[in-house]
Amino acid sequence: MSFQNPVFIPGPTNIPEVIRKACDMPTIDHRSPLFGQILHPAIAGVRKVLKSADAEVFIFPSTGTGGWETAITNTLSPGDAVLMARNGMFSHRWIDMCQRHGLDVRVIEVPWGEGIPADRIEAALSADKGHAIKAVLATHNETATGVLSDIAAVRRAMDAASHPALLMVDGVSSVGSMNFEFDGWSVDVAVTGSQKGFMLPPGLAIVGFSAKAMAMTEWAKLSRTFFDIRDMEKAYANNAYPYTPAVGLINGLNLACDMLLEEGLENVFARHRRIADGVRAAVEAWGLEMCATRPEFYSDSVSAIRTPEGFDATSIVTRAAQTYGMAFGVGLGEVAGKVFRIGHLGSLTDAMMLSGIATAEMSMVDLGLPMKLGSGVAAAQAVYMAPRAAVAKDAA
Amino acid sequence: MSFQNPVFIPGPTNIPEVIRKACDMPTIDHRSPLFGQILHPAIAGVRKVLKSADAEVFIFPSTGTGGWETAITNTLSPGDAVLMARNGMFSHRWIDMCQRHGLDVRVIEVPWGEGIPADRIEAALSADKGHAIKAVLATHNETATGVLSDIAAVRRAMDAASHPALLMVDGVSSVGSMNFEFDGWSVDVAVTGSQKGFMLPPGLAIVGFSAKAMAMTEWAKLSRTFFDIRDMEKAYANNAYPYTPAVGLINGLNLACDMLLEEGLENVFARHRRIADGVRAAVEAWGLEMCATRPEFYSDSVSAIRTPEGFDATSIVTRAAQTYGMAFGVGLGEVAGKVFRIGHLGSLTDAMMLSGIATAEMSMVDLGLPMKLGSGVAAAQAVYMAPRAAVAKDAA
Amino acid sequence: MSFQNPVFIPGPTNIPEVIRKACDMPTIDHRSPLFGQILHPAIAGVRKVLKSADAEVFIFPSTGTGGWETAITNTLSPGDAVLMARNGMFSHRWIDMCQRHGLDVRVIEVPWGEGIPADRIEAALSADKGHAIKAVLATHNETATGVLSDIAAVRRAMDAASHPALLMVDGVSSVGSMNFEFDGWSVDVAVTGSQKGFMLPPGLAIVGFSAKAMAMTEWAKLSRTFFDIRDMEKAYANNAYPYTPAVGLINGLNLACDMLLEEGLENVFARHRRIADGVRAAVEAWGLEMCATRPEFYSDSVSAIRTPEGFDATSIVTRAAQTYGMAFGVGLGEVAGKVFRIGHLGSLTDAMMLSGIATAEMSMVDLGLPMKLGSGVAAAQAVYMAPRAAVAKDAA
Amino acid sequence: MSFQNPVFIPGPTNIPEVIRKACDMPTIDHRSPLFGQILHPAIAGVRKVLKSADAEVFIFPSTGTGGWETAITNTLSPGDAVLMARNGMFSHRWIDMCQRHGLDVRVIEVPWGEGIPADRIEAALSADKGHAIKAVLATHNETATGVLSDIAAVRRAMDAASHPALLMVDGVSSVGSMNFEFDGWSVDVAVTGSQKGFMLPPGLAIVGFSAKAMAMTEWAKLSRTFFDIRDMEKAYANNAYPYTPAVGLINGLNLACDMLLEEGLENVFARHRRIADGVRAAVEAWGLEMCATRPEFYSDSVSAIRTPEGFDATSIVTRAAQTYGMAFGVGLGEVAGKVFRIGHLGSLTDAMMLSGIATAEMSMVDLGLPMKLGSGVAAAQAVYMAPRAAVAKDAA
Repeated sequence: MSFQNPVFIPGPTNIPEVIRKACDMPTIDHRSPLFGQILHPAIAGVRKVLKSADAEVFIFPSTGTGGWETAITNTLSPGDAVLMARNGMFSHRWIDMCQRHGLDVRVIEVPWGEGIPADRIEAALSADKGHAIKAVLATHNETATGVLSDIAAVRRAMDAASHPALLMVDGVSSVGSMNFEFDGWSVDVAVTGSQKGFMLPPGLAIVGFSAKAMAMTEWAKLSRTFFDIRDMEKAYANNAYPYTPAVGLINGLNLACDMLLEEGLENVFARHRRIADGVRAAVEAWGLEMCATRPEFYSDSVSAIRTPEGFDATSIVTRAAQTYGMAFGVGLGEVAGKVFRIGHLGSLTDAMMLSGIATAEMSMVDLGLPMKLGSGVAAAQAVYMAPRAAVAKDAA
Repeated sequence: MSFQNPVFIPGPTNIPEVIRKACDMPTIDHRSPLFGQILHPAIAGVRKVLKSADAEVFIFPSTGTGGWETAITNTLSPGDAVLMARNGMFSHRWIDMCQRHGLDVRVIEVPWGEGIPADRIEAALSADKGHAIKAVLATHNETATGVLSDIAAVRRAMDAASHPALLMVDGVSSVGSMNFEFDGWSVDVAVTGSQKGFMLPPGLAIVGFSAKAMAMTEWAKLSRTFFDIRDMEKAYANNAYPYTPAVGLINGLNLACDMLLEEGLENVFARHRRIADGVRAAVEAWGLEMCATRPEFYSDSVSAIRTPEGFDATSIVTRAAQTYGMAFGVGLGEVAGKVFRIGHLGSLTDAMMLSGIATAEMSMVDLGLPMKLGSGVAAAQAVYMAPRAAVAKDAA
Repeated sequence: MSFQNPVFIPGPTNIPEVIRKACDMPTIDHRSPLFGQILHPAIAGVRKVLKSADAEVFIFPSTGTGGWETAITNTLSPGDAVLMARNGMFSHRWIDMCQRHGLDVRVIEVPWGEGIPADRIEAALSADKGHAIKAVLATHNETATGVLSDIAAVRRAMDAASHPALLMVDGVSSVGSMNFEFDGWSVDVAVTGSQKGFMLPPGLAIVGFSAKAMAMTEWAKLSRTFFDIRDMEKAYANNAYPYTPAVGLINGLNLACDMLLEEGLENVFARHRRIADGVRAAVEAWGLEMCATRPEFYSDSVSAIRTPEGFDATSIVTRAAQTYGMAFGVGLGEVAGKVFRIGHLGSLTDAMMLSGIATAEMSMVDLGLPMKLGSGVAAAQAVYMAPRAAVAKDAA
Repeated sequence: MSFQNPVFIPGPTNIPEVIRKACDMPTIDHRSPLFGQILHPAIAGVRKVLKSADAEVFIFPSTGTGGWETAITNTLSPGDAVLMARNGMFSHRWIDMCQRHGLDVRVIEVPWGEGIPADRIEAALSADKGHAIKAVLATHNETATGVLSDIAAVRRAMDAASHPALLMVDGVSSVGSMNFEFDGWSVDVAVTGSQKGFMLPPGLAIVGFSAKAMAMTEWAKLSRTFFDIRDMEKAYANNAYPYTPAVGLINGLNLACDMLLEEGLENVFARHRRIADGVRAAVEAWGLEMCATRPEFYSDSVSAIRTPEGFDATSIVTRAAQTYGMAFGVGLGEVAGKVFRIGHLGSLTDAMMLSGIATAEMSMVDLGLPMKLGSGVAAAQAVYMAPRAAVAKDAA
């Protein structure tokens, strides 16, 4: 695997130069005031990226999976019922975690490739007259299938059912790449990590809690210590941490938020959209189909691409890695061997994306798939040139 | 706080140049074979540093506190009894964690400054005829008081009582700095982190499990997912991880183990001993006392130093930080304000240590403590020169 | 200019991760033995890359231009005649330097786009019965026009004329990228720099001297101190330097040589050939022409590409930089505005090169040049896939 | 040699973390506007550090020695007379360079340990009725003997003699560490490098030219190309360079100037003074003498320390390096074996300096010199504490 090629896995992403340098810090005394000067701006930055005015933000030396555990253990008790749609590997894993923690998970099975069905959420909640369901868990962006779900619709469904359950959203592969509105959607717990939209190395779970979710921490009986946000809350008030913080990553997170906010969140999202549109144009030019069944489900951070029946999609990933030194994502779970994935989140240029498309193209042609060399690239180029044509004309 | 001065907190340590570079990796595909080539040697290296032939080693994106949680949640069930001595802030915190997880902790209270009393462990176990106690938890090195406990003696006490409890040892601030014998002491679970003897940034919990402890994972009922070693075990067999690994830190860990093993563990321990001897000679020259009440308890990774009655020990740390840009450790818990701490673990030279001693000295004199400038430095210099005198003579 | 896109200027090149880290050294004592352990292997490595058994190699904190000055000032005296072909900006500049140093330069004017005419060299030398010409200066690879000259032919011409002049070769943009035979071609002085085939940042002039050239240093009357190789020679014998060496760059050079030699020089050259073949295939697909007038002149380190009459070639470079954040080279001197240049030397992958080709393509289409999107990419892809087809079949 | 200990050679200095990161840049297109945005602020910054309103500043990929060559070759012609005092190895070397370039050097021999005798300069110039002397060359800080000369006095001497010669000053080890007044002293050419007061790695010659010196470039007949400032001047006007610039170092220089100016030049000088005062206090406590014969000659960037008759001063440096992994400077030329040197310029903390003093102390005691351990450290500590006592009292 060449260190010179960009990676096109759906996270961890390519890390911008300045962020690598911000993370590569010499040791400081994490009990000194300097640490507070790193931590608090990082927290404030995350809050803005979440589009929240006052979410409580906590940062753990962990991963998104640890964020899931933080979400449920701080708010729920053994035996509590939760409602969740399973439409891919990552929603499946969160369901599995809930079950292992003794929760009663009411699963809405959804074909992989589709988003969360708000109508079925509403139906299930409306039927839950006794409010046994304590939380609705939603995977905003199913990284396994490249499917974006409509969280605003989930919230509307909950409101329509007048149900008091908490809304917990896995935004691991959406926050910082696609629109996420903590306050606008009345999210109660948002979960993300360092290594996706924040463009950092892996190593941080980042969570946001609403006041309603915070209030649950006193009642939640699921056992926890490492992930107990009450310890974090107390420590933060003293510029401290309940244990040793990952100072370098938090320093990098601080910078990452600055970068995202300086570019402007809507510009960041538009950039992801443009890059992803290029990939989707290439897929169409190749005569292939997206795993996401409808355009409304298309994710701007990762594309899962179906290969023809009988063809092993994983061989594309292997070929690209071994022959061209480039990393793409394999299909997971139900769609293993049926899709391969192109990650296109974080800090990417059009030129980088074109190198990914060109390499996927070579790998597929190498393996006998019927497509024309340069076809996907040309389709993506057209997308990338379009928004700039006007500018060029103006400058001329 | 100057980035140029070494830090003398008891971890995270000063990070050697090569380790910083090993951790500062570009993103790789953690599902590619390359990851296995980083992970498995790191695991093998940790095993050797633990002096074990076949401990199962697991590496979590977390901290030592997460390692504690891994130890108990994978082996114990709610209501299980565990036995533990409380002789400082870190043993206190592990006790607290056990209680929050619903364990029945039988605490042996020990004056802060003393080690684990093996005789009282033996007595408690002998009295436990029904073997209700499922585990003895031991803090090898109490970072808060600079007290090293004799784990071999704890093991002998367990054997003398013919008690089948597991032996879990917190080696966070001892492993890689002072002798630790996983196999020799029949340790069942060893817990450590990246940021002490391994000289890495914080961000990893590192645990070792004996076969006996591994067997408990099927019966342990404490809830866990992020810290479930069964998921790790399965994933490792496929060169993979149950979630996104902190590749850079694992790459650094790999190198750190190589460095420790190449220097030779006994040489590493002797180096820590020599550096610590110099600090202790300085303390004596200053007319101060160690928090550790007897030489057998002296830690080679951190010295907690008592200041005179009525003097605020924390002011030394503040003075050193604000005036000289150097970080020492404050006293915690019961000894807050009564001790300050000099961390001297990881990769340190004599010259670095002398700068720490000289700065502590200036800070104390600044604050009116009656001691002669240069006195502590001279005492430490004598220690650092001694082992080399013969060499010098030979070379002459 | 994005730091994430590769650069496609004809040097400095993209710097491999490990080389950046090797150059980024903390300060060492350059008068300590450690420096010798860095310097001497670097010298030995350069010698091997030059394909020489015993060339004296000198490394200056300077650039290729300083290397030219080193070459002439250490071997020549004011008024000495030298013979040189002018076929591009860099040969022009070396001629200019000679003139400013009071040498009598006999210039063979050659159309830009052609290589050194060995027959005219032979004729000039044969006519020089009195051996007034003390040196033949040759630009191996004209970076301005992407023209490679045949140094073996120049040597044959010199031998045919039985002329004793020194042969000095500017290998700045060829050494480490294309075949260079110091011994095989009886080169007397070879000049190169750190920032091309050695993949390092700029900052080093690297020169090799034959025994014959070394002997001239006692007679050469051109004034010099900084570039005096006699001072270097004396100092090297003591593991030292006549002034402060650029230790980090020399450390990087050491590693760069190791990398080139481990890959195998012939493999390195073949890689450059393959990458360049792809670029040339793209140029043909675009319906454009190379500045180099015949395939035998094609350089594998840089391609200068002619644009249609009346079109400003520089606008492509500006467009690519401003719109797509990618750097290409402009035309210089006689071919300014007529060509743009794609550098393809150093550590490049096929995927990186394809991103460069795709971006050049977008820029040209943006500016109205009549070519099909994807056409150049497709042509290059075909080149890059070909050598691997067999491998793929074998693996199947 | 440990990478963890600071170095105490008189340059290159310890490099601050942020400067290392600024120098470690990925490749950019040095012909793009971005380069101008790095170059011009660096030039402006150097001008301010030189305390000049309009000196022309040039930056070469070279070293201080290259700066000397730049100074003379751009202003003088073969046979020109120059006047210079020889009071150490570096003045000796500049004299040697002048002679090798065919200048008529009129040398004032001065005992090593003393500064430039302004009265003898004045006498020589007064005697030069025909103004054959074209330049007075002055070494501001003799790095070999730790002797600072009074350039203001040299200027007064020139003015007293009403002599039109240029004043060229070697400020390699003074600029950025001790007061240097380009305009105030009417300096015509100032020479320095990157690796001393600017705290950068070696690799840059930095020169400042007055309008008077600039005017000489048209008449100067010494041959030059690499060091020709006319090429630089033309190129800078186009945000360019006559050859490939060392972009990373120039980027670092930019930051270094910002750091010096933000701290305030007078504060930087006072810091160097305080650090040096501590070293000198230690020397006195050790019962040793400075090579500089009078306090007015004491350098704040390097101390050369005489050892007793019959003792090999170099053995201290060897001992410190081999036994304690710390680098000091040996004596050079006339004072080889008679002095050892402690460099204390650049970014140093008191604590770092104390580690150097403590290590020198151990090395000398190891070698049998009669001094008390801790004595030098105590004397330096007293110096470092003094200016802060008031602050401490205020804060109390």
